[in-house]
Amino acid sequence: MSLSFIHDETPTEEVDRREAVVAGLADSVRALVDATIRTTVDDDEVRAVQAEVAALTERLRAAQLPGPAGVRYNSEGRSWSWGNAVVGSSNAVAPPLEVQHAGDGRTSYAEVVLGAAYEGPPGMVHGGVSALLLDQVMGETASANNSRIAMTGTLTLRYRHPLPLGPVRLDCQVTKDADGKITVQATIGENLPDATPAVEASGLFVVPRWAR
Amino acid sequence: MSLSFIHDETPTEEVDRREAVVAGLADSVRALVDATIRTTVDDDEVRAVQAEVAALTERLRAAQLPGPAGVRYNSEGRSWSWGNAVVGSSNAVAPPLEVQHAGDGRTSYAEVVLGAAYEGPPGMVHGGVSALLLDQVMGETASANNSRIAMTGTLTLRYRHPLPLGPVRLDCQVTKDADGKITVQATIGENLPDATPAVEASGLFVVPRWAR
Repeated sequence: MSLSFIHDETPTEEVDRREAVVAGLADSVRALVDATIRTTVDDDEVRAVQAEVAALTERLRAAQLPGPAGVRYNSEGRSWSWGNAVVGSSNAVAPPLEVQHAGDGRTSYAEVVLGAAYEGPPGMVHGGVSALLLDQVMGETASANNSRIAMTGTLTLRYRHPLPLGPVRLDCQVTKDADGKITVQATIGENLPDATPAVEASGLFVVPRWAR
Repeated sequence: MSLSFIHDETPTEEVDRREAVVAGLADSVRALVDATIRTTVDDDEVRAVQAEVAALTERLRAAQLPGPAGVRYNSEGRSWSWGNAVVGSSNAVAPPLEVQHAGDGRTSYAEVVLGAAYEGPPGMVHGGVSALLLDQVMGETASANNSRIAMTGTLTLRYRHPLPLGPVRLDCQVTKDADGKITVQATIGENLPDATPAVEASGLFVVPRWAR
């Protein structure tokens, strides 16, 4: 199966400008998601807010893409995936994560604050959310910061202890890279100097034959 | 580390009534999340909608919980976790998944439609989203539909082929259950009669010592 990346000749300057605008909206929608979980206002007020949310949705749908955002690139080498479930700047499901890649391209890290929307056990980050974030960081690092395509082959996660909601940090490194197969190790834990990893991950990422 | 489940003596009838109200709002917020990703309306209109979203958030925050929703239960045996990242009915990050448990308590399945907010590779479900959903279904099944506490110990995922956005199905079964350690197998794939699994998962779930 091939994947449809979209060649989009929007100039980088215009991409950056538009991204700031939609990212601003997505930030506000993230706050609305949090408030929807935590609100204790009365039923009538919840219903009144719901009607207004629906009206705003219709305004945004006045002109829209026919489907998901996809992954786009232009001839200047800029690529963007604003809809990505982890890093997408226009996607309010995404925290969003900003992955920091080291100069050698083999290590990376990310810091983010996870709030009420990412809960599993009471007060704790959902174990599947840790898997979701780790998969993205590991995939990006395996793909050398998106300079090649690397798909998840296998992913193994060891859960050492529960991870409280709040500031978390992910660390990642490529430990082997040969013949289109890339082995990656990563952790997620509390963002504290002396924190031990809550979850340890090991993954094998594969450059598809059609993309080598 | 212990977990703080909240004893909340709201009568079941009132819990059900309130859940329907907040679930309605969350459904509308999900549509707004989708529209935020896909909209192509001009910058001024995006900014105007953003201001209105912020105002609605303030209305919901007029009265709210101090933190995440947590997991609650009452003396009638009703438990609820409306903020859960996968199944929470008030959480617009959650699809939400509704896990169907078989009578024997050892098997379960779930069907859901995944839209633009769950994208990873272009047009495809994010590999980490598959992991997120699988972890929840497997954890719920290991916990015998929440009749005991079971935490993820290890989770291994094998990615067989990309999974297109759209209708998906998860299937899960407990294959071993002894001494507080539960082995669970699960798959996710397209919701078609002849579909082969896109991702196969194997997990070891553990009943914490303090909860045995």
